[in-house]
Amino acid sequence: MKKIYIGIIGFGNIGAGVVKLLKKNFSLIKERAGIEIRIKKAADIDLKKSRGIKIDKNVLTKDAHEIIDDPQIKIVVELIGGIHPAKEYIISSLEKGKAVVTANKALLAEKGREIFKAASQNNQDIYFEASVCGGIPIIKTIREAMIANRINYMAGIINGTANYILSRMEEGLTFKQALIDAQKKGVAERNPYLDIEGIDAAHKLVILGSLIFDIPLTLKDIYNEGISSLTPLDLKFAKEFGYAVKLLAVAKETNGNFQFRVQPSLIDIEHPLATVKDEYNAVYIQGDATGKLLFYGKGAGQIPTASAVLSDIVDIARNLQSKTQMRIPPITYLRNCYKVMPLEQLKSSYYLRIMAVDKPGVLAKVSNILGEHNISIASVFQKERNKAEAVPIVMMTHEAKEKDIREAIKNIDKLPAVKGNTVRIRVEE
Amino acid sequence: MKKIYIGIIGFGNIGAGVVKLLKKNFSLIKERAGIEIRIKKAADIDLKKSRGIKIDKNVLTKDAHEIIDDPQIKIVVELIGGIHPAKEYIISSLEKGKAVVTANKALLAEKGREIFKAASQNNQDIYFEASVCGGIPIIKTIREAMIANRINYMAGIINGTANYILSRMEEGLTFKQALIDAQKKGVAERNPYLDIEGIDAAHKLVILGSLIFDIPLTLKDIYNEGISSLTPLDLKFAKEFGYAVKLLAVAKETNGNFQFRVQPSLIDIEHPLATVKDEYNAVYIQGDATGKLLFYGKGAGQIPTASAVLSDIVDIARNLQSKTQMRIPPITYLRNCYKVMPLEQLKSSYYLRIMAVDKPGVLAKVSNILGEHNISIASVFQKERNKAEAVPIVMMTHEAKEKDIREAIKNIDKLPAVKGNTVRIRVEE
Repeated sequence: MKKIYIGIIGFGNIGAGVVKLLKKNFSLIKERAGIEIRIKKAADIDLKKSRGIKIDKNVLTKDAHEIIDDPQIKIVVELIGGIHPAKEYIISSLEKGKAVVTANKALLAEKGREIFKAASQNNQDIYFEASVCGGIPIIKTIREAMIANRINYMAGIINGTANYILSRMEEGLTFKQALIDAQKKGVAERNPYLDIEGIDAAHKLVILGSLIFDIPLTLKDIYNEGISSLTPLDLKFAKEFGYAVKLLAVAKETNGNFQFRVQPSLIDIEHPLATVKDEYNAVYIQGDATGKLLFYGKGAGQIPTASAVLSDIVDIARNLQSKTQMRIPPITYLRNCYKVMPLEQLKSSYYLRIMAVDKPGVLAKVSNILGEHNISIASVFQKERNKAEAVPIVMMTHEAKEKDIREAIKNIDKLPAVKGNTVRIRVEE
Repeated sequence: MKKIYIGIIGFGNIGAGVVKLLKKNFSLIKERAGIEIRIKKAADIDLKKSRGIKIDKNVLTKDAHEIIDDPQIKIVVELIGGIHPAKEYIISSLEKGKAVVTANKALLAEKGREIFKAASQNNQDIYFEASVCGGIPIIKTIREAMIANRINYMAGIINGTANYILSRMEEGLTFKQALIDAQKKGVAERNPYLDIEGIDAAHKLVILGSLIFDIPLTLKDIYNEGISSLTPLDLKFAKEFGYAVKLLAVAKETNGNFQFRVQPSLIDIEHPLATVKDEYNAVYIQGDATGKLLFYGKGAGQIPTASAVLSDIVDIARNLQSKTQMRIPPITYLRNCYKVMPLEQLKSSYYLRIMAVDKPGVLAKVSNILGEHNISIASVFQKERNKAEAVPIVMMTHEAKEKDIREAIKNIDKLPAVKGNTVRIRVEE
């Protein structure tokens, strides 16, 4: 039986997971694939920290180049994250005739073009299933299973931390309380910025959007908004209107115009994405042949991510065994020109929450301003009456332009009776 | 660019779909895969019937052997269904050195062992994504994406017709009314037997069960029960207890003991499978690495199924282009010995509906019988009181053996106050 030697650069949580999972299911993988996967080297700058697994001391090294320069190692698994030196390690590995597996979404989102070009030029495979949605095989599905489909729409819950926080807020916690709970549970990092501000989701959306539309998408093409300004009150009102609030990553094409956005969105309670709770991820995708598909599972975590890394390793090992490289091209940018619609031009229904002192005529003034901006109200309610404090006026609008909504809100917030900033959340159809 | 010639045997609904979809997305597939897929021949016994597509007359033939014997054709797509002559065509094609794509679940369920053996002996690929769940890439996911996973549980809604009927029954239609509606909508066939009695789901479960457990499963290993005896009343009561009723196909391993069953089941309303409505399919699968995964989409239909057929064709074409056969072995039966637990030994909670004349002491007698069979009641309700007619006594039991439930029901149904047969539905945890 053929043995394939691999090297892991970055022996942290995911790296240790790969070693652990390969150990556990070694013979299962061997028998199914007919290939033995052997870890020859694992490199990390910190060799003292315990990874909770036993590993031969000779396997560990501080020097990534021991892996990159080892002619016996055919697959380099990059798990250090970040841009530098991950990028340099990957490109050197490709140049040395090695295939690469990476889970590095930030790198692919920012430098994907360079990396895929290097793979192409060196005729080497680069696989990256673990970079998006951990245990959900969304990359393989798009690249292989949906190859006969023109895809025009995708909406995903692709950040587990944000979804966990929103699930707790649905139960009444404030954003801050929910964040602290997430950190306690290990679902949020100590510095949660990338997750709660939608940056992590934007990285993943660059990768998915490039794949589904065959375009060289960049981070600049993504409109991005986080969840930190949401309140449990809004989630409660949304529910009363029949919606769940989710941090959605959306990619859409309409007649050659693209839109890419990560933002809190209202989604019909009956939509399959609305039932996705806690740290789970889900991707809803529409092919012209398959129709609606939904993939649901754990988008992060040591072992689910290790499962994705190992499936990539086996795929490449199968290619190597049959002396095939580039069986599936690194990434195909079939359309180099593409036009991203400015967010201001997009139309949607909106949820609005205005905090106003309960005086006669306030609703009339608000309605007037909306009307002046071509926004009509679909439904409205004003729950409690309270003479002293501001009370919420909550409404759902008919379809309106983002630009008009923004301008209307600016004017509404100038009304003397209105306190604080009006909250607006997009409705995703 | 390399051209791969294919032949289609069985030019019915799905066959026409493959032609239609390949025509529509021909250049997209060509550019993505770097391969041109060309249909050289399509064979059918009926060449007069319109397929709603234009096709060159020279492509059509009545003789399948024109395809099987054509040395230029590298991939044979079998879409005639049924056992004979599909089996003979497939085996001849493999023997002639051709790869095979098939959507024939009945054939794979009944003769899979022979067919996979022929593929193996002739060193040829056989792909069958379209045989289970149409547009959902569940076969690829299990064989490739989940390769590093030991799977111990799978539950699926894998028959769209039955799920459509149950969705209508949830709205109050009787089974018969719902079936007629399904037939009108084209969701049920004129002879719906295979779908409503769970035979079609059992065929698919043989294929999925073989894959997830690496065992040569046969139809005999599957316990099978249909939905025709359900009433809208049961769906209503189930809902009041917090459950949906679904025709579930379940494969489970507990300490080396397997169970395979297709049966109407109660599933918690919060479970992701509970929200799957109409003709949609979904597969819920648990890997030891990935954790819970759910895949949702259209399990049938001309174009979703054609999408699966084309993804298989492209996969094989990629293998042929790199002169690789058996990159993924036809099917691996790693464990030839396996023990299927008899249904009678399985434990579960149950929903029971007993129709009884409302006399004092009936519930006591029913409870006594249940108690004698080690069945304890978790909750019970008896809705309306009516002296003349039998009224439903509905209950949920704690976990009990199927054997005990059956015997208890036999005795309950002998009580003079009890009218008709008691309905029992398994609760799927």
